[in-house]
Formats: sequence, C-alpha cells, structure tokens
Amino acid sequence: MQAKINRQWRLARRPVGMVSEADFELVEELVEDIAEGEYLVRNHYLAFEPAMRGWMEDRPSYIPPVGIGEVMRGATAGEIVASKNPAFPVGAFVQGLLGWQEYAVGGRGLAQATLIPPGTPPSWSLGVLGITGLTAYFGMLDLGAPQPGECVLVSGAAGATGSVAAQIAKIEGARVVGIAGGADKCAWLTGEMGLHGAIDYKSEDVSLRIHELCPRGVNVYFDNVGGAILDAALANLAQRARVVLCGGISGYNEKEPPPGPRNLMNLVIQRARMEGFIVLDYASRFGEAMAKLAGWVAEEKIVHKEDVQHGIETAPRTFQRLFRGENTGKQLLALV
Amino acid sequence: MQAKINRQWRLARRPVGMVSEADFELVEELVEDIAEGEYLVRNHYLAFEPAMRGWMEDRPSYIPPVGIGEVMRGATAGEIVASKNPAFPVGAFVQGLLGWQEYAVGGRGLAQATLIPPGTPPSWSLGVLGITGLTAYFGMLDLGAPQPGECVLVSGAAGATGSVAAQIAKIEGARVVGIAGGADKCAWLTGEMGLHGAIDYKSEDVSLRIHELCPRGVNVYFDNVGGAILDAALANLAQRARVVLCGGISGYNEKEPPPGPRNLMNLVIQRARMEGFIVLDYASRFGEAMAKLAGWVAEEKIVHKEDVQHGIETAPRTFQRLFRGENTGKQLLALV
Repeated sequence: MQAKINRQWRLARRPVGMVSEADFELVEELVEDIAEGEYLVRNHYLAFEPAMRGWMEDRPSYIPPVGIGEVMRGATAGEIVASKNPAFPVGAFVQGLLGWQEYAVGGRGLAQATLIPPGTPPSWSLGVLGITGLTAYFGMLDLGAPQPGECVLVSGAAGATGSVAAQIAKIEGARVVGIAGGADKCAWLTGEMGLHGAIDYKSEDVSLRIHELCPRGVNVYFDNVGGAILDAALANLAQRARVVLCGGISGYNEKEPPPGPRNLMNLVIQRARMEGFIVLDYASRFGEAMAKLAGWVAEEKIVHKEDVQHGIETAPRTFQRLFRGENTGKQLLALV
Repeated sequence: MQAKINRQWRLARRPVGMVSEADFELVEELVEDIAEGEYLVRNHYLAFEPAMRGWMEDRPSYIPPVGIGEVMRGATAGEIVASKNPAFPVGAFVQGLLGWQEYAVGGRGLAQATLIPPGTPPSWSLGVLGITGLTAYFGMLDLGAPQPGECVLVSGAAGATGSVAAQIAKIEGARVVGIAGGADKCAWLTGEMGLHGAIDYKSEDVSLRIHELCPRGVNVYFDNVGGAILDAALANLAQRARVVLCGGISGYNEKEPPPGPRNLMNLVIQRARMEGFIVLDYASRFGEAMAKLAGWVAEEKIVHKEDVQHGIETAPRTFQRLFRGENTGKQLLALV
C-alpha cells in the first residue's frame, strides 16, 4: 500500500485545571507498516469519556497514565484497511483503545481491538453497546440493585452512561428521576426517555427538588458528577440507600480534588453504602451484559443519543464539551 | 420509702458549636413514686458516647432529639433500690438509657433497662460488654470483615469503640494499625493492646505514616473521627477496601457539617466501599455478640480501659472530655 499520512494528537504536557487544546499537539506521521499478526485500522469515530481526563494525570490509578509524547489514549471504532491477521480481515469493523489518530496499528502490544458484530452500527459499539453501556449496566444492577417501586436518582442523566443507567433502573421497575443541565436535556429525560421526573441543576434547587420528587428518600443514587449534587443526594437518602460512584466529572479539572460532601454522616444515620467500581473488573460478564443491552435497544426500552462532532483537528475541543455539559448522549468525533 | 432528692441534668438549649455546660441545667427534683410494673434505679455510672452530641440537635435522625427541658439522654448502669416489678428485684443491677440523673424510674415508657448478669462489673455493661462493644463487633465483623493478613486501620483507637474494634480485627488475624492522639495512648496501643503499629495524629503526618505501616494499602478502615484522618485513610486504600463509618467525632461540634474528604474518588479507583451502620439494627444478634465479647475479655484477648470521673455535677464537663480527646477507653462518670 502507498505511504499515507496519519494525523494524531499526542499529549504535550500534563494539564493544570481545565484541559486545553495546548495540552495536546497535532502531529503528522506516515502510517506505519504492519507486521505478521497485526492489522491497520482506519478510525471512523473517536469516543470521549470524562474518565480520560484522569488518564492524563501522572498518578497511580487503575490504568497507567498516558505518557508525554504518546498518542492520546481513547476508544475508537473503525474499519480494517490492511491486515496480516486472518481473524481481523480487511473490511471488518473493530473497536478498541486505538487512540486519537486517523490510523492505528492493531494487534500490537496493548493496542488490541474487538470485532464489531455485523449489523451493529460502529458508533454504537462506543456507546450504548460498548464500555459506556456496560458501565451503566454493572453499576446500576450490581451495585445499585434497584427494586420495583424504589426511587432511583441519576446525575449526568442526559450523558452517555447516565441515560442508559436511568433506563435500566426503569426497566427494573423503579421510579427514576434524572438530573441534567438545561431545559432541553430535561425534556428528553421525561419525554422520549420516559423518566418519572427531571431536575435541571442549572435553574432549580437540587436538594429541594429531590425531596419533592423522592419524598420517601432516594434508594439508589447513581453518581456521575460528584460535588454539590452528590451532597444534595446524600442529604436525601432513604434507609439502606446505595450510592453508586461512577464518576465525579465536576472535580476532574480542578487543580486539587475539591472538598467532599458535607452530608457524609448521613451514610451512618441512614445505614447507607457508597461504593465505587471499575467496569473492566466485570470483563468476564461482558457477553451476558451486551446481549441484554442489545435486546433492550432493539425493543426500544433503551433509547440513546449521539453527539457527533467532525474532524480530527477538533478532538481537544470535542473533549472539552463533556466538561462544559454541552453534549447530550454519547460524545463522538467522526473522522470520515 | 422516704422522699429523696434526685439531681438531674436537663437540656437547657440547643448547643451551637462546641457543647458547653450552659447548654444544660442541673435541677433537683424529688424522686418519683413508682407504679405497678415499674422500678427505681439508683444510677452508679453514666456513660458518654460521641453520638450523644447528635441527639442534642433538632433534626431527623435514627432516634428523636432530646427535647428542651428533658433529662439528657444517656446510658447508665445502676442498682434497683425499689421495685413493683418481680422481674427487676431490689438489689439487681441494670443498664439502659436512663439519663443524666441520680435516680431513674425504669419500666415506664421508653425508660426500659436490661438486667446485668451477676458477675459482670456494672461499668463493663456500658463499655466493652455493652453497646460500645457491640458497635465495634458488628461494625468490624459485618461491614469490615477483615481477612487474615489484611491491613486494618482504626481511628479513635484508644477510645472505647475503637479499642475493641482494633482488637477484634487482631483476633481475626489482621495486621492492625491504630490512630490516636498522644504518646501515652499510642504506647497503650502497641503495648498492652498488642497492635502492629500506632500513629499519633497530634505529632505525625498521618497519611505518610499510614503508607509506611500499610505499604500495600488499607484493606479495612474503621472510622470514628471523619475529617482529615478519613481523608488520609481514603488516600491509602487498597483495592476492594471497606471503609466502616462508625462515627465522625471531628465534626460533631461544628456549626455546620464540615466539608467531606477530598479523596472520595479513590473509592472508584480502588473499587472500594464506604458504609454506615447503626448498632440498634443488630438487636436480634446482640446475644451471640455479647457471648463472644465476654469470652474474649475473659481470655484477655480484649483488654479495655475505663476513664472514670466523679460527681453528677461534672457531667457536662465529662462529656466534653470526649471531644477534647482527653479520655482513654470508656468515658464514665461515677455517681456513688
């Protein structure tokens, strides 16, 4: 094949505070040759998750940090355009942590990809039928374990993970209230998504509204944001509540972690539990979960949205959309 | 019987900030007559727990607040000196929530007492063989569930609950590190109590010392204090750690709850759990637990201390000792 240009975003420095475009560098490389067992992927979509902000920090975590000068780590979906691996034939679509770049060599080191089943839109494999949906699935069902009639509260409910988590709780028979920023997002929650209630944190008193919508207290709180909204949820727990810590986007761009919730002692008074999880720990059950999620999507019990931006040059700005609350549903960047 | 004077401390007002003597009023009443089914208890000991500070606040909790003008609620142990109830004969010793007073009528309304088994020192029924020991037992074993070789960290480890919790973890085969204030308390932890390590929060960098003493991370953290020490523990969690929220004495006298721990997101990274509990929920298992505790005390696998002050007039000042960290072991006030 001809030598092709591969545009890629590399990490230029550790961000301080809000991640900025200057933390990355857009470079052009020649597309690398592939060796036996490898394959070349043309990325069609980059996917963005708040947790990626943590990967940019030089500190111990559940995954090593992205090194300075390395291609920014991120999930992608794309088409195999060259292959020396019979299990990954040209023309097949794959998804994996192939990074912010137009072309990636798969099958080398940690750059391993997974085939996307024919018939599944590649972008869905990055959202509702990917790690995002799996995160919602295990967080809500294994940690939250909502019971019929219980009140389930979800923050970031118009986001990719929150929207799926909220709908899974609804499928389980819970009364579900979502928190999101802005009237449009809230209208989506109570409209197409069919939640029992929505709270607009930009214009409403969150604690008061939780109390109104969950008068007997919150049985499950699925938290994507942390900060003041977590505090408001803790103030309104029911006895034996489960607080599922999925993420804390409100603090990810702070120079040091912000102070935690004042209402922590409510965990004692209400005999409640707060628990974090990492979806990768559930890898042995991904098959079971994916089959369930695909069924619910096919039956339209789960609706989902994608927020698709365009052009590799906008990757850092597209990433920032998450932290500005600009996306509804899964934040993606289309490259082709 | 002759009319006798009963000195009692009543709640005079809601405290703001640090509880003070002026929040209470010492009054003298005649000892009340007892009716059929009732009995009169001469209190020998008042017991003090940090949680009593919460009972003075007018807010929803797991137990109604003490009303203004009511005798201050508190556990006591005493002797029955008059009785119209054959199950509670004169001369028997009982313990119960009989309040800050010299005499109490038992068997009336919520003022119910429990017989102390003959042979058990009455004061022990307020500490290691009472609610204090039970709190340590269920918190450590049911929520913390330490495994042999795991690192268990206990704050307030020279206090009544913490000292028992730490020793239960040691019995389970864990490596136990206690946090306490001052060299004397720390010497007790690593000396007579036989813990693997002690951290003096008044003179040492707590987070650094936790890291030194638990280099592979903290598997179970039993928290009695909250605040900065909870934050330091969260910064040093091992994967799948259990944080047992027993109390948060550092915040009890604040005018509003202080900000929570900054390192909350470590619960996600370490897939850890933080859980609160109320010992009263375990009432159906008190018998089992008490038998175990009594056995361990008899075998000297659990050592315990009592800090005994004297005279009903010192009750508010004795209560303050808890919040100033002046007590080692169970804080008691002897009345006879």
